[in-house]
Amino acid sequence: MENYRFPKLIEIKQAYQRIMAYVHRTPIMTCSTIDKMAGCEIFFKCENLQKVGSFKARGATNALLKLSPSQREKGVATHSSGNHAAALALAANLCGNKAYIVMPSNSSQIKKDAVKGYGGEIIECEPGQKFREAKLEEVLRNTGASYIPPYDHMDVIEGQATCALEMWEEKIPFDALITPVGGGGLFAGTILTTHYKSKKTPVYAGEPKGADDAYQSFKSKKYIPLKNPKTIADGLLTSLGKRNFEIILALGEDIFTVTDKEIVEAMQLIFERMKLVVEPSSAVALAAILANKKVFAGKKVGLILSGGNIDWEHLPF
Amino acid sequence: MENYRFPKLIEIKQAYQRIMAYVHRTPIMTCSTIDKMAGCEIFFKCENLQKVGSFKARGATNALLKLSPSQREKGVATHSSGNHAAALALAANLCGNKAYIVMPSNSSQIKKDAVKGYGGEIIECEPGQKFREAKLEEVLRNTGASYIPPYDHMDVIEGQATCALEMWEEKIPFDALITPVGGGGLFAGTILTTHYKSKKTPVYAGEPKGADDAYQSFKSKKYIPLKNPKTIADGLLTSLGKRNFEIILALGEDIFTVTDKEIVEAMQLIFERMKLVVEPSSAVALAAILANKKVFAGKKVGLILSGGNIDWEHLPF
Repeated sequence: MENYRFPKLIEIKQAYQRIMAYVHRTPIMTCSTIDKMAGCEIFFKCENLQKVGSFKARGATNALLKLSPSQREKGVATHSSGNHAAALALAANLCGNKAYIVMPSNSSQIKKDAVKGYGGEIIECEPGQKFREAKLEEVLRNTGASYIPPYDHMDVIEGQATCALEMWEEKIPFDALITPVGGGGLFAGTILTTHYKSKKTPVYAGEPKGADDAYQSFKSKKYIPLKNPKTIADGLLTSLGKRNFEIILALGEDIFTVTDKEIVEAMQLIFERMKLVVEPSSAVALAAILANKKVFAGKKVGLILSGGNIDWEHLPF
Repeated sequence: MENYRFPKLIEIKQAYQRIMAYVHRTPIMTCSTIDKMAGCEIFFKCENLQKVGSFKARGATNALLKLSPSQREKGVATHSSGNHAAALALAANLCGNKAYIVMPSNSSQIKKDAVKGYGGEIIECEPGQKFREAKLEEVLRNTGASYIPPYDHMDVIEGQATCALEMWEEKIPFDALITPVGGGGLFAGTILTTHYKSKKTPVYAGEPKGADDAYQSFKSKKYIPLKNPKTIADGLLTSLGKRNFEIILALGEDIFTVTDKEIVEAMQLIFERMKLVVEPSSAVALAAILANKKVFAGKKVGLILSGGNIDWEHLPF
């Protein structure tokens, strides 16, 4: 363990002030039908309605704005093909900076178009983690840009923590909060804010059984990297971050794993009953509640719908 | 022309007071990407997030609650397999009354389940308008229930008019409003409220080319019934109501027709960019704006997303 310094409440509040002109304050929605099925009262925080369709806009914007003016002038860079890439591209665009996004050449056209549409400059590399990292190194060397990682970075975690800050500002007396967990940025941020705002309120996460490294790490209290992940929740195919793991282990309540079948069923419920488009990763938290009704019975539960970017050609239902 | 008496503003306001405990006050959402594409500022009133997933909850509830106690005791009835059936079933259920819903025997199981789930009693009949009407007559005779038609009824129009009332209460200085038109309940109600709240503001409708009886009737100033409709917008496969036509002809601004291709493209935009599930009928209004950009250029446009009940097995994209 590295004993990282965790962001304080005042820093999370400052992050919110810093990013609020660039991100949406997303609504909280409820659904009586789902409440009846779940046996508890769920408050859905709609980050699928966030800029770029994902909570990732918060962390990327915060990390970018914490750079010095001279750093920002040289731009930011990351290697990603998902929501973080789009979020960083848009954040840089809105702030008048450059974003270099390293993407494997076999990324789908739709993902490339998204990053381009938000104003990011795509640098293609061969598929594979090693090639991505090497290409990113090269970009950083050539441009002097700052690397903004997708989750294993305190400024990113601090940004994601502003989502729960908005939730607590609504004055709902949550008995529990729950998020999905992949790299752990959203889960760790939600844990931190909740720890400061209501120490007694437990924060849970849902994780796909096919990518359960956070569960394994949390239960064994030892960092276990993800191997051969396989799940429909394509936003959660990443190893937990080291910083994220320390926060989760110290202050997180529990992690529930769910099957892809449970994820798809929860996703369909949200589509049909709430009329909201969510990506499979978003449905993991609801799936976890429905599979663990006793834990949540009668409680007021704050649930973060993390994103809404889905591949329409491969809708799972 | 029958010269029907149109509901007054005070009556629409009373309707809102009457139904507000039974329906949602739906949010208004915006989307900068769609605004850029459309060249105007669109305020989407989300009736897809209404009870039963459609604005129809408003009219059905208002018509039910305007019945006398002795009438209500005998229940309400309609013949429909769509959103009005579900809306009437739920309204009756919430108010402690019975709803008899005449449905053709070949209706999909999903539609039957919806009506049953909301507490309606389904009476099956042979497919075909004549059989539906005969069976409804029989039900009314046997039960003494009151018939609540889906749109051609002033209490229903008055109820649908409460949607625009909520919109005008938001103090947005709309330059125009637009809705889809099928039977004309929502369009006529929106026209009435807007006429009272801001006489100079034009109210438009979008209609599928494959079911353009409202367009034909409006342009020729003569009621022309719908023949052999064919469109993906299954909520708009109905002839314009007579009462609705009088209101539309007297106070409506214009009707634009759009192709099914344009409807599907608009629907996909709303899914992908707004993360909202809408039925094809809902997308007709946006399709009409995108096909008539000059009319709306630079304006603030209030658009009603009428509903969100779609058949997932036949998603058009």
